[in-house]
Formats: sequence, structure tokens, C-alpha cells
Amino acid sequence: MRGLMQDYPLTLQHIFWRIEKLFARKEIVTRREDGVHRYTYGDCAARVKRLANVLTGLGIGPGDRIGTLAWNNYRHLELYYAVPCMGAVLHTLNLRLFPEQLAFVINDAEDKVLFVDQTILPILNRIAGQIPHVEKIIVLSDGGDLPPHNLGDLLDYEALLADAGKEFAWPVLDERDAAAMCYTSGTTGNPKGVVYSHRSQFLHAMAGLQRDTLGLSETDTILPVVPMFHVNSWGIPYGAGMAGAKLLFPDRWMGDGAALLELAREEDATLLAGVPTVWIGLLRQIEQTGIALPTVHTIVGGGSAVPPALIEGMDRHDLRVVHAWGMTETSPIGTVARPRTWHSAEQAEVMRRTQGPPVPGVELRIADIDSGAELPWDGVAFGEVQVRGPWIISAYYHDADPGKLTDDGWFRTGDVATMTPDGYMSIVDRTKDVIKSGGEWISSVELENAIMAHPKVLEATVIALPHPKWQERPVAFVVPAPEHRDQVTQQEILDFLADKVARWWLPDEVRFIAELPKTSVGKFDKKVLRAEAAPIGGE
Amino acid sequence: MRGLMQDYPLTLQHIFWRIEKLFARKEIVTRREDGVHRYTYGDCAARVKRLANVLTGLGIGPGDRIGTLAWNNYRHLELYYAVPCMGAVLHTLNLRLFPEQLAFVINDAEDKVLFVDQTILPILNRIAGQIPHVEKIIVLSDGGDLPPHNLGDLLDYEALLADAGKEFAWPVLDERDAAAMCYTSGTTGNPKGVVYSHRSQFLHAMAGLQRDTLGLSETDTILPVVPMFHVNSWGIPYGAGMAGAKLLFPDRWMGDGAALLELAREEDATLLAGVPTVWIGLLRQIEQTGIALPTVHTIVGGGSAVPPALIEGMDRHDLRVVHAWGMTETSPIGTVARPRTWHSAEQAEVMRRTQGPPVPGVELRIADIDSGAELPWDGVAFGEVQVRGPWIISAYYHDADPGKLTDDGWFRTGDVATMTPDGYMSIVDRTKDVIKSGGEWISSVELENAIMAHPKVLEATVIALPHPKWQERPVAFVVPAPEHRDQVTQQEILDFLADKVARWWLPDEVRFIAELPKTSVGKFDKKVLRAEAAPIGGE
Repeated sequence: MRGLMQDYPLTLQHIFWRIEKLFARKEIVTRREDGVHRYTYGDCAARVKRLANVLTGLGIGPGDRIGTLAWNNYRHLELYYAVPCMGAVLHTLNLRLFPEQLAFVINDAEDKVLFVDQTILPILNRIAGQIPHVEKIIVLSDGGDLPPHNLGDLLDYEALLADAGKEFAWPVLDERDAAAMCYTSGTTGNPKGVVYSHRSQFLHAMAGLQRDTLGLSETDTILPVVPMFHVNSWGIPYGAGMAGAKLLFPDRWMGDGAALLELAREEDATLLAGVPTVWIGLLRQIEQTGIALPTVHTIVGGGSAVPPALIEGMDRHDLRVVHAWGMTETSPIGTVARPRTWHSAEQAEVMRRTQGPPVPGVELRIADIDSGAELPWDGVAFGEVQVRGPWIISAYYHDADPGKLTDDGWFRTGDVATMTPDGYMSIVDRTKDVIKSGGEWISSVELENAIMAHPKVLEATVIALPHPKWQERPVAFVVPAPEHRDQVTQQEILDFLADKVARWWLPDEVRFIAELPKTSVGKFDKKVLRAEAAPIGGE
Repeated sequence: MRGLMQDYPLTLQHIFWRIEKLFARKEIVTRREDGVHRYTYGDCAARVKRLANVLTGLGIGPGDRIGTLAWNNYRHLELYYAVPCMGAVLHTLNLRLFPEQLAFVINDAEDKVLFVDQTILPILNRIAGQIPHVEKIIVLSDGGDLPPHNLGDLLDYEALLADAGKEFAWPVLDERDAAAMCYTSGTTGNPKGVVYSHRSQFLHAMAGLQRDTLGLSETDTILPVVPMFHVNSWGIPYGAGMAGAKLLFPDRWMGDGAALLELAREEDATLLAGVPTVWIGLLRQIEQTGIALPTVHTIVGGGSAVPPALIEGMDRHDLRVVHAWGMTETSPIGTVARPRTWHSAEQAEVMRRTQGPPVPGVELRIADIDSGAELPWDGVAFGEVQVRGPWIISAYYHDADPGKLTDDGWFRTGDVATMTPDGYMSIVDRTKDVIKSGGEWISSVELENAIMAHPKVLEATVIALPHPKWQERPVAFVVPAPEHRDQVTQQEILDFLADKVARWWLPDEVRFIAELPKTSVGKFDKKVLRAEAAPIGGE
């Protein structure tokens, strides 16, 4: 027996309906070279309809891939709505990829049209002649001369919009149609394509508005510092649109703590979202300038584990970091670490440092790394995190890297975690980073967090290096805080760790370096470290 | 091109997963004759699995309808989970229906098994011998002798659970499978069946947790005073389960202001939900006893328009009424009236008295009552509200009352409303209650609200009666507050209205009565009034 409810498809067109009909007067503010660009959701919606006409005029049809090479700004947001709502697929390109990877993903997706920020043209120019499927390149220009390039004839975004029709009749879409795609950063091998459906994006946005997840609300002013080329900026552009929240975009000043602080302060931001390295920079800026952010109620931190020292640092300024976990393959929101009513104040402090429990719509379990058997939620057993739900990947594009789903259909995340009896996940490592010393597991992440709590340490990472006796042993790479450069010793770090981790977990060596290699999305790049590291005892 | 996301079905099994895995320690408290019954979601989940085994043992299979005739209590909640999660359909029976209507809905749905609260057996007994499809009747007994009846052999719920197996392997369901059904109260003709799918219930629960809708949270303690036989108690049992909120059930003391106040106070309720008549009773109780409810942050009022006088009365006690709108056919949540950031304090007070803007997932429009043409959102034009979305009805069961959908698939609600330019709906009437006087529309609801603002008035309703010259004219029926009985006059009411409504809106007569007839769900029953009213000038 079937339900007798409307077959209303869950698509991004509904979110567009909301921004146009309900939130037309809300603002979207984008930082510019000189001041800000400011307009409303109503202005945005009018341009989205023109843009849909532009796409149709360029011969774009259902399922065609449209690449974007752009920062977080209002034009990128227009593409976020126009492309999927008219039936095409928004392919956000990670502008931090190496040129050969960038060419690979454009070719793998067979992008037909590219939209490129004027300032990013030089990056695209490096692969001129290597992207045969691309028929048109449209520049999101700010006026003035374009930089020299070999990309052939370029079209101008504003000129096309000015000539386009004002009305657009949206087609009827199937909720399982592709809406967007995003490639993983590809730390090993080629990047892999993740294809989001309208349904997955819609449901992910629904979850993001829930009070115990991100709680996005019309009353919020949101500054997403997650790049819009990275997992749809964690889905925040769509969540903000569904909720009617004011949006702040940092454009290309994403890594500039002073610029972020200024934008958040001037526009009374209430919710910030980004990876820990961004917040480490912002915290330093706050501490140096003494500028407070009294309107901010939440800083969502995710993408990699939030170091406890960062949480405590932000607490000192009444800035509450809410820890979330997810990945490109999970759209990304999987867990959000808000404490429960049954936690004491002390337990709550522990729990907000975990990755937290799964949000509505996501189920997870942990499985033994070697045998695959499901493990108990006892806070001790640690195994690979496996997830399922309507916004979790079923396969990569072109079936790259098959075998990431279990036989019963759960996605194998590659993260290693423990689960408390009340469902709080603590990621202790990646399956490929966890250190197996003498047959026992050591968590590289826990060691890193312990080291980063040292007041003289800015950043630290720990990798396994081969060891003749123990198979693998941990080695730490530490970046001292600028004011302590050359003033911190290996012994000091080891002494500091002595009462924090088991004795046999202590790194065999602590190596000081000026900077940690990072991936294109700002995570510590252990693959590079492992490849370049001198053997233990060999330096 | 399709998305590559998991085909994870949106079913109530996911909510069950959450209560069992994440919220096992949260409490569910039910008022009893003597004190309360208290247990946890963990206890509930264990009994749900036993109950699923009981159902299987009774020969219940996919799609079979299971009727429940029960108040708001923990056993009814167990049925809410076990029945749909094992693939059958939960048919909640409105125990306030007339016997012939009750027999009609049981027969129309072909309920195979009924679960009945012991105290409600006499109601069921009235239709003994008239419900041929029912194979088994199971009593939710509290021990002691059953009342005399002609219902044949009855089974005992607790005895069945005690004998049932502890584990149950849930079947894989399709999200469009029926999960539950509920009949409209049928103010004209036979009640009509609405069939909810797993998908619609899941999505409705997702919306209920959003911060700008009901905002259900793990931090909440929720007292749903909406009967569980009425639109699934507005979906709150599932929303609370998804969020992990503590639940309070008033059992059969639903209309007892003193009992509600005591339960809310003793258990530190944070959110109450119910129809305005319930809150009128609670407000009187609060004012008489001086007992405050300091932990309550929200009183959700819906089902019929919340009188402004009630909102103001609750405001005096720091109890914030949040106005919501919906109907059986909309699952029910369609709109929630929270003000926006762009409203001044003064505008906000106006806006929270409207029905509010549509929640994420629901789209609405207004259409001319005569021509069906879409009307502008200008705050003036008023027309029939039409809605669409994934939890809006597509057809009644057995295709009763066809033609309630427009040609383009929107549900015609029968409500008449204006829309502000920023999407706030103000229901001014029902298409069948709106008064057409001399070719112009008069809103019966606005007149009622204006009259109920009079300090000597407890309740009031306005109906159209035939008029030789003007076609129809309004007549008011007023229940004075107990302390003002026989102390208020027609002239006093008309004088009070003089500066509040247009002169030609003034009722031709004000008739004082001891009590207003109400429908089975507590709304004023205008059909009864119209049928019994003496003609204008004829009393």
C-alpha cells in the first residue's frame, strides 16, 4: 500500500523559490579589493534567471557539466542556483589543484563551459590547450584589462547577463538528477568525482537548519570560509538560502585573518564555518588586535579534527567552536558535536571535543580495520567509520576506486574512530595514517593534538616511519609559534607529553620545520611528509 | 545524468534507529490516574521490537491497517514505531467521532487489528458487531476488570509483549510505502482518509527540528496536547524521537487544565503544542492558581486561528505562543509565524499573529475564490490557499472527494487568506464560512477575533445567515466569561467593535449562549450552529 502524498521532487528549485519569494530583501555581501559588493537575494534571483537564459543560449542542456573556477562571491552563488535549477550540473573546480590535476578533472567531467574569476585566469591559462571538451570560457570580470592568456575568445559574464531575458521557466526535474559534482583532493592518485543529486543537496540543507546541527536561521549572518569549490562550501550556500540567512563572502581573501575579522565585525556575523587552520589564523588576529566578535554565536570547525587548544583559545574570547565532521563523499555533514542534556558540565567539555553524534539522516557504525566485524560503542574499541544515508556517496564518477562500499551498502570512510555508548564519535586517525607499533595501534591525531596544546607550538603533525624492530614508530613534525622559533626542544615536547599519552606512544623523534606541507584544501599533507622524511635515526 | 548518492529510503526506521542508538536514556513520562508512568526511549525501543514480533505473530503483513483507539501515552508511542517500521499502516482512530463515523472509518480502512485503551473500550463497544474486518482487539490495559462489552475475546497487550521475542529484523521498506493514516474530522459528509507515506513523515520530522519552525531539540521537554489520533499529534512524536527530546504525555487528561499545568510544571516542560481552546483553559488555570511555567520557551498554537487575546494573555505570563498552520491533509505543518529580522518590534507583534510564512518543503499561493486565478502577495487580495510539497496530500483514500487538487497539482485547502509581500499568510476564513454580503467578502474569523478581545468574552464565533436584501449577513454567537455571565449586552459588543472593523461588517445580531458546539478535535462547529440557528430577526 502506497502513501497518497504529492510526488513533489526534492530539488534546489525549491530553495530558489524561497530566496525569491520569501527572502528577497536579505543581503549578500562580498568583499572586494576596495570595500564590499552588496546586493539582495532578490537581486540575486533576478540575475539567476538571466543566467539560466544565458546557459540555454549557449546550448547547455540537461545533465551538461558546467565548471566554475571561482572564489566565494556573489557570482559564484548565482551559478550555484542557475546551473542546477536549469537542469545542468555545477562542477566546482578546486583552484588549488596542480595544473595536471585541474586538467584531469575538467576532462574527466567533460565540462562544456567554464566560468572563471578574472583573477584566476592565470591558473586556467596554465592548462590552455589541454581541455578539449570546453566550448566556451566566461570571465567573471571586474572590468579592466584581462591578464595575458592563450585561452582563445573569452565571453564576459556581465555582458551576457545584460543581454539575457529576464524570465525563465524552470524545467521539471527528477530529484535524483545530478545537481553538482566535486572532486576529492586526491592525496593519492587522481582526484575522484563525487556527484550530488538534487535530492541529496535538498536533504542536506534541511538537516543544516536543524537546531541541534548547524541551526542555520533567518536570524543568522553567515560567513562561510570553506571554499565554494570544496564540497559546495559544506552546503552552506543552499542552507543559508533555505533559511534566508544573510551571507558574507570573503572572495579571494579566504586565508587573510585580518580581512575575515573585518568582514565578520563590520557585518555583524553570527556564524562562521571553516577548517581549523583558518581559525588558528583568526584567533591569532583576534589576540593581536584585541578586536572582539560579540555577535558571533557559533564557529563551525571541521574538515580535520579541531585541536583542543583552538577550542580553548576561542573560548577565551567567548567564541564557541562547534565541531563537525564530514567529507566530500558525505556532502559533507555527518556529525555535529553538541553536548546532550545528560552530560555534566565536565562531560560536555569532553564531548564537544569529539566529532559528535550523527545528524538526522545519517547512520554510522565502526568496523574492525582488519576483519570488518562491527565493533561495540564502548568508547574504547576503534575501527573504521562506515556511514549510510541519503546524502552519502554510492559510487565515484566513472566508477573510480570501486570497493569503497561494503557488501551491505555502507560507505567506508577511511576514518578510524571510537564511539561512546551514547553515540559520540572520536576520530583517532585515518586508516592510512594510524601507526601500528609492535602490533598495537597508535593514533597519530591524538599525538598531534597533545603536541599542539604546547604553548610554544603553532602546528604539528605526526606520521609513521618504518622501524626495524616495531614495524612503525611515530615521528612528529612541529612548527613553533613565530615568537618561539628556535626556542623549543625535542626534550621539552617529550616532557610535555609524558603525562598525556602512554609512554610507548611517545614519538621517536620530534623534528622542527618552518612550515607543514598542506593539501589543496588546507589539511596537513602527510603523504608529502612521508615521501620526503629522512628515516628514523638517519638525520 | 543521475546523482551518485545512496538510495537510502526515507523511513521511520531511521527515527527508530536514533531513539534506540542515540537517545536510549531519555525519558518518556505519561500521566496516570495515580502519579505518572516513567520509562526511557531505551525501554520503549525494546518494547517496540517485542510489539513488532506480536504483530507478525498475529499475521500482520506489509500494508495491513492497524487501528488504534488510544490517548496520548507511552503505549500509543510504541504502536507509532512498531506498526510502520514493520511495514504495516498505523490508523489512528479519533475517539470523539460519532459511533457511526467510527464504524465507517474502521470499515473504510479495513483495519485488521485494533489496539484500544482500556478506558476507551465502552466507545468501541458501541459499534460491536459493525466492524467485520477486525480480526483481533488488543486491550492496552492497566490491570483490573474490563468494563462489560460485546466485543468477543480480547487480547491483553502486556501479556502479548511478555511472550514475544526480543529481537526483530526490520524489513527493507520503500519510502513511498504507507506508514499511517488519519481521517479528517468530516464536518460535512463522511470522514475522508489521508494516507501518509514513510517519506512524508520523515521529511515532516526533518522540518520540525529546524530552528525557525518548531525547533525541536534534544534540550526540549515536549508536552503534545494534540491528540495522537489527530494528524499524528502534529508529527511531534516522530519529531521528538528524531531530536531525542523528552516527551510528556497527558493520557486522557488532555482537556484538564490543572492536570496539564501540573505535568508541565513537575517535569520542566519547555515546549507545549495544541489547539487554542486548550491554551484558553491553561491560561485560566495559570491565572487562577498563580502557578508559573518558567521553563516553557514556546507554546505552539494551531489547528484553528490563535485569538490575539490568547497571545496577549500568555505574554503576560512570559509564555510565548508561536502560531502555526496546517491541516490533516498537510501532515500538518505548513507555516510557522516567527517574525523576521527585518521586522521592527511593532511589525513583529503583527506578524506573529498571522499564520506566518511557509516552512522549508512547503510552497503556497493564493487563488481567486471565483476564478481560480493566482493573486498577488500584497497583503490585501484574498483568495483560497493552495499548497504543494512532499508532505501534502495527492488524493484521499478510496479517492473520496476528488477534485481537491488543481490541474497543476496544488492542493486546494479551503482556507481563505491574504499574503504579505514577504510571504506571511493571514487566514481570514474558510471558503465555506466567508460571508458574502452585498457582493463583498466579510471575514468571519476577523470578526471573531475582534469580539474575543472583549474582556467579558470567553469564546465567540460568527456565521453567515441568509438575508433577504444582502444575500448573507454575519451573526455572532458569544460565550461570556463565567464571571460576566448575563452581564454583557449586544450593544456593548457592537460598541466595542465600532473602531475595529468596517461599519458594514458589524454583526446584525449578537446571541449569547452557554457553550459553543465543537467538533471532535475542539474547533468551533459552525455547521451545527448554522443548522440550528434561528433566522435573522426571527428569535
